[in-house]
Formats: sequence, C-alpha cells, structure tokens
Amino acid sequence: MRVYGVIMAGGGGTRFWPLSTKARPKQFLNLSGKDILVNETIDRQRGFIRREDIYIVTNESQAGLMLQETGGRIAADHILAEPAARNTAACIGYAAMELVKKQEDGIMCVFAADPHIRDEEEYTRVMKLAVKAAEETDALVTVGIRPTFPSTGYGYIKSIPVESRPWRAVEEFVEKPDADTARAYLEDGGYAWNSGMFVWKASTILRYFRELLPDIYACLEKIGDAMGTDREQEVIREVYPVIPKISVDYGIMERARGVLMLEGDFGWSDVGSFDSLDSVRTKDEAGNIASGETLFLDAKNCVVCGTHKLIAAVGVEDLIIAEGDNAVLVCPVSQAQRIKQVVERLEEEGRSRFL
Amino acid sequence: MRVYGVIMAGGGGTRFWPLSTKARPKQFLNLSGKDILVNETIDRQRGFIRREDIYIVTNESQAGLMLQETGGRIAADHILAEPAARNTAACIGYAAMELVKKQEDGIMCVFAADPHIRDEEEYTRVMKLAVKAAEETDALVTVGIRPTFPSTGYGYIKSIPVESRPWRAVEEFVEKPDADTARAYLEDGGYAWNSGMFVWKASTILRYFRELLPDIYACLEKIGDAMGTDREQEVIREVYPVIPKISVDYGIMERARGVLMLEGDFGWSDVGSFDSLDSVRTKDEAGNIASGETLFLDAKNCVVCGTHKLIAAVGVEDLIIAEGDNAVLVCPVSQAQRIKQVVERLEEEGRSRFL
Repeated sequence: MRVYGVIMAGGGGTRFWPLSTKARPKQFLNLSGKDILVNETIDRQRGFIRREDIYIVTNESQAGLMLQETGGRIAADHILAEPAARNTAACIGYAAMELVKKQEDGIMCVFAADPHIRDEEEYTRVMKLAVKAAEETDALVTVGIRPTFPSTGYGYIKSIPVESRPWRAVEEFVEKPDADTARAYLEDGGYAWNSGMFVWKASTILRYFRELLPDIYACLEKIGDAMGTDREQEVIREVYPVIPKISVDYGIMERARGVLMLEGDFGWSDVGSFDSLDSVRTKDEAGNIASGETLFLDAKNCVVCGTHKLIAAVGVEDLIIAEGDNAVLVCPVSQAQRIKQVVERLEEEGRSRFL
Repeated sequence: MRVYGVIMAGGGGTRFWPLSTKARPKQFLNLSGKDILVNETIDRQRGFIRREDIYIVTNESQAGLMLQETGGRIAADHILAEPAARNTAACIGYAAMELVKKQEDGIMCVFAADPHIRDEEEYTRVMKLAVKAAEETDALVTVGIRPTFPSTGYGYIKSIPVESRPWRAVEEFVEKPDADTARAYLEDGGYAWNSGMFVWKASTILRYFRELLPDIYACLEKIGDAMGTDREQEVIREVYPVIPKISVDYGIMERARGVLMLEGDFGWSDVGSFDSLDSVRTKDEAGNIASGETLFLDAKNCVVCGTHKLIAAVGVEDLIIAEGDNAVLVCPVSQAQRIKQVVERLEEEGRSRFL
C-alpha cells in the first residue's frame, strides 16, 4: 500500500516572536542552523515516504512562501491551501479527501511541521512499524514519545502492550497534567507524550469522520465532490471557513476504538520556545546558545538569535536576546512564556505591524 | 569685535556603540529626541554668534555627512576638513588660521559638538561674559562647569575670584581626580569641571601657538600661507598629517599666563555614555529611558535605544539595550564602560564592519 505524508503547517504561534511573525511563522525558521523546520520535516521522511507523495496543508496566505522556501521539494499541487484555519480535524480531513479522490486509498502519515528529531534512523524504524500497524489492523495509529522528564506541557497517552506485536493498545488520552501527576506518569512507565503524529489509511480516518464528526464530514464530502472539477477552489473557499473547529485528538482520537500506539524514543522535541533551543543547538562552554552573528563578553546561559545584525551580549546572564525582521526581544529565559503577552499587548496597542 | 564659533566635531568615540559608528559618530546621534547633537550645538549659539560665523572642524571622511546632516545651517566652506585627526591643538590652530587669513581677527569661541545644555538662557549669559573677558583682557578664557557631584571623569580647573569682575583667575588645571580628591574639590568650591569650552581672540591663540608650540605653529603657517591659493588643499593634505598630536589643554592652557574662567551653571552634560542619558531624556515611572519604538513589560531602570526596529524589554532590570544600523548591544547599565572592550574585540576579530 502506498504511503503518503501530510505535513500540517498551519500554525501561527507566537512563542518565537520576533523571529517568527505572521508573515513568516515558526515552520520557516532555521532554528538548527541547518535548514528551516519544514524542510527538515520533509527530508526526515525520506526513509519511508517518497518525496512526491508528501503533501503540506497550510494557510493560503502562506502557500506561496511555502512553495518558495521548500525549494523544489514539494510541487505546487501538493501544497493544500486552507482558506481559514479550522484546527487539525479539518486539516486532516481535507488531506484525506484529497488522497482518496485524487490518488488512491493509502497509508496517510500526519506530522506537525516543526518538531526536531535527533535520531532519524530510529525514527524511521518506528514509523515503518506504525505504517505496518495501520496496514495490518486498519486501526488509527499514533506515535507517542517516551517521556524524558515530567513535562506538564504535553498531553499524555496511556497504553498497554499488545502481545507479540511491537505496538501498544491505547487505553486513554489524558490532558496536560500538573507537576505531581506528571511525575507519577513518568514513574509508571505506561504513559507517553502525545506528539500529534498519526498513521492510518486515508479511507479509515474518513470513516471515523463520518461516524464521529458528521458535520465536518458533510463539509468534506462537498469539497471531495468538487475535487478535480472547475468548481474545486470555489467550493473550498465557500465550505472550509464554516467547518467546525475541533482538534483531531478531541474529535476522533479520544473517542475511537482500538487506537494503537508506537512508542518512540528518538530524541523528539517540539522546539516549543526559546528555552527549548538546546534540543537543536549546542551550548558553548559558558552555556550560551547562539545563532547569527554574535559576540559574548562574560555572558552566561543566554539564548541569542541574530537575524540581520550582530548581537553583542555583555555581562548578562540567563537572557533571551532575539532579533527578528521588525523587532528585538530581550527577556529572561525563565520568562519565555511571557512572549505571548508581548504579542497580545502589541495587538491591543494597534502595533501589529511588528507581529 | 566679531564673534566666531568653532565646533570641534572630530570625535570618533565608542561609548555609544552600536548607535554611533565610524561612519556615523556620536555628534550625529539624536539622543535628546529633538535633533542630532551637532545641530543642537549649532543652534545653541544663536544668542551671541551669527549662524554664518560658525565653523565646524571635522574629519574629511565626515565632511559630506556633516554638510548633509546640518541641513543648510552651515555652508560648505565653513566645514573645515581635517585629513587626519591630530588632537585639539591642531584643530583649533587650523580654525584660528582660517579666521585670521580669510575673515579678520575676532573673538573665537570653541565648543565640542556633543555636550547637552539644559538652560540655554543662562548659557548665553555666561558666554557673553566670556566674550567680554576675551575682548577686554586679551587673555585666554575658558568656561568651567560648576560641579554637581564629585565626578572622577573630568579634569578640574582651580580658580579664584577677580575683584569687581564676573570672571575668575585660573590657578591650575588638574587631572581627573580619585574619588576622595573629587569630594574635596566639590567641598572646596574653588574647582570647576574642565568642559573644553574656550573663548579668545584668534590672533591671541595663534600667538600662544608660536610661543608654546612652535612646531605646530610652523605647520599652521604653511597652511595659512597657502590659504586662498590653488595649493590650499594640497598643502593641508601634506602638512596636516604630520602636525604633532597634542591637546590644547596640555599644550597651551596649562602653560599660559593669566587664563581666565567663567563659571557656568547651566545644566551642562557631556552625555558621555548610555548611563548619562538621563541628562537628555526623561525617565518613565519605572525608571526606563526610551528612544525609538519600544515596549516595556515589567522592565525597570533600563536604557533602551531603538533605531529601526521595535525593542521589547520584558522582565529585565538595569539593562542597556541599543540597536544601531548593524548591531544590537545588551549590557548592564553598570557595565556601560565595557562597551569599548566590545569595540576592541570586534577590531581584533576582523569584524570592524560592525563598528
């Protein structure tokens, strides 16, 4: 069965402001120093998906930039443009419909555009098993991440082994826990981080849409019926903006029967904010992480991201210093979560030209 | 007697890097938010010098920028271009020679391009007295600043009153003192800060050059002889670079007889570095000083200077954050004096494109 990749690259996200902006969201950032995140995500699938079978779903305002920045990796007709952001269920349903209508039924692997994965070989091994699970069982399959610390920032998946099979049976999806619960999950060993990676047959997920999210399925059917006709774009523009906003986790995964999970231990990081850049960058001996042109003079444990200008950090500690196209941010590493307040404030003050 | 102004604008200076650069030194910075320093200095003389009688001595590499940035205030032939920086004696001697050869003997008032003066009315009153002193007595006259705190950053002038005259007789020029000595000077009351403002007849200062700095005088004579001829520029380019480098303070003022001083108390500040910007800018209620587009979120006592980009300071205290054309600096206010180390380091590392 043919294996397709679907990269969800719709995210706005403010946690890397001012490096990321509305015009240039996180997936277009080169955080590792090697390539932009979305290209790293495309290239990472090379071990089990042919490049011409990879699709990207993104906001239509970013489709042009996506085509340009992926530099020939992805053909224009493999960039699925959403006229509006309607959460992950809509995005996944649209891509599944595209596959069954224009290609064929096949295994559909869904990824976020922006995680970093250190051990690509192990990643490929696990993903191949996930593909195998979806093929053999016709189940919805997810890839959970073996926790390395008691994170309160992710949802968790509780699962139990399946006899003589490399995958596990999902018992429950649980919300982001408090610190005590997170520690208990880590100790228990039966909980994995919900990474938002899914593998299933396109026809299978559409069946779940019909059953569990009939309103959305009705919209998807209208879009599917117009696919390949002159009216395709017109119908998408008409129908998409009114698709109910719901996540695939909440709308389907938590309610489906017999969900399977592969546990991954391949150095996954969602690179969620400036304080997690150490997952993609090496610290110098003073604990600083730097990108762009920098000068450190007695600076310690700083995260310094220059874009166009030299950044000189003198005698400072534990600071984020980030220069984007339109703005410079200086903030203690420990207050990285306050960046969204800055963004909100700028919106309120009518200064969204800096966002 | 006609009164001329000579503004010395030769300074490189690194203490406002990266706002100030080699291509755009401190005198071209708009630190007050009103106008660039050199224009404020030109305009400040309006109460006692006609604008067409003001000259600027600057490095030839900056002459074009000076003409442009002063926006019609100064005619091109009143910008005296130095082919090399040879300290203040050379600069003053060149300007004095220009006056006596091309204009006439007159009172010559010498200013630095970059101090800030709060009380312009009082300044004008004092300067008029200084002009009167130079006219009446033919002495070298300086304007000392009444100290407002025991500064260790300036040289001092010791003086005593002159009976029934508004000026004082200089007893001694003294070097930058240590903290104890500075406190003693402040208590004594007979010491003023050496601000580098001088008033004298052009012919008088040239007489002192001939007597006290005969090597320099010989160079000045060669330049003076060529003035107004076809060879003027050629001779300046030949002679100027070999003029001995000496300050007018050390070469003349400390050795001349009968130097007079007016004491000024008009809110003078040399705006020497980021930590003295409070002399030209008002702090907000959190103690922050801001220029350009800024956003403060729980930031305290910061000095934030934006040029092109928004600067967002979140949860930080006592920091300088300065964005220049090519670089961004982040440094504790208390370490403002380390900026010159940054500049030295960039030179050493061959990264002088950022300077």
